[in-house]
Amino acid sequence: MSASSPLLNELIEALRCLPGVGGKSAQRMAFHLLERDRQRGLRLARALEQAMQRIGNCTRCRNFSEEPVCALCASASRDRHVLCVVESPTDLAAIEQATGYRGQYFVLLGRLSPLDGMGPQELGLDLLAQRLGEGEIEEMIIATNPTVEGEATAHYLAQLARAGGIRPTRLAHGVPLGGELEYVDRGTLAHAFGSRQALD
Amino acid sequence: MSASSPLLNELIEALRCLPGVGGKSAQRMAFHLLERDRQRGLRLARALEQAMQRIGNCTRCRNFSEEPVCALCASASRDRHVLCVVESPTDLAAIEQATGYRGQYFVLLGRLSPLDGMGPQELGLDLLAQRLGEGEIEEMIIATNPTVEGEATAHYLAQLARAGGIRPTRLAHGVPLGGELEYVDRGTLAHAFGSRQALD
Repeated sequence: MSASSPLLNELIEALRCLPGVGGKSAQRMAFHLLERDRQRGLRLARALEQAMQRIGNCTRCRNFSEEPVCALCASASRDRHVLCVVESPTDLAAIEQATGYRGQYFVLLGRLSPLDGMGPQELGLDLLAQRLGEGEIEEMIIATNPTVEGEATAHYLAQLARAGGIRPTRLAHGVPLGGELEYVDRGTLAHAFGSRQALD
Repeated sequence: MSASSPLLNELIEALRCLPGVGGKSAQRMAFHLLERDRQRGLRLARALEQAMQRIGNCTRCRNFSEEPVCALCASASRDRHVLCVVESPTDLAAIEQATGYRGQYFVLLGRLSPLDGMGPQELGLDLLAQRLGEGEIEEMIIATNPTVEGEATAHYLAQLARAGGIRPTRLAHGVPLGGELEYVDRGTLAHAFGSRQALD
């Protein structure tokens, strides 16, 4: 902490809200911005304020968006017959960046977890059911996390899809590419072994 | 990058001005704030804006301060007979946090480097000379960095001190505590060897 400036102390303290930033890093960031980059510091302040105040959720897919309907849902170039369901906007971003997927999304903003008060209502499953009811979607790719709660959610979603005459699919689980069998956890290895595929 | 929100993209891009934050970390920070911590995100925005716009330099020691004279210079409990000269506010903070030093400071905001346009004027040495001329200071602790330019600056400062009848001192250089001789660089080891001290 600097002994001479309350505003500087406040900035260092506030920077600690960022994930992975402790006291030392926060101090280094504050000094860096003050000494070398005040313009970009101000730009960051404005970007933060705008984002925190104006970003809400798309009324169609529930992803982050400052418009009622996000650019992705509004896009005419995305395949309207496939819907990928994810737990969070972070998961959506990961899929967008890693895969060539060009279909639609639906973001649950959570997973089924009755003890935490996360039921079908909170996950927007009524909105999802309505979307499925529109009749365009043929495949629902269920991309919830492979945790106990994520699996329960996947199970529930699959039932929802089948009830609407839609084919549910699930991301493949197994040994990660580049991973060594020796270091893969037992659950994953057992699953990969059981789900072995024929080489043609 | 998120495909659906320009404000989110702008925030991720702006977060990259922080030292040590690349694209992946910036994305993680933005999603973290949006999903879990909007209040603290807004607080950070305000702290940044205030700090970038209102923090200037103390007219007496040139450290960061939003007041004309910083709390440290204004404090009656600091020893007025010792002055520690440092290159940057970061160095001042490091000394404050690590040592029990209770004297005054002077921040050069740089080091002598004529090629970069950093001369005595830019380092505020006229202000320093005026301070020394007040007659209160008896010892000047020169805490510039042990680089070529820092040493040249130290040399210059020592002359300034002597001209004013003030005793110049320099931080001790040598093998860091906890360091192993094997891994200490040759320059430091040679210096530590030459400056060996008698054990009494």
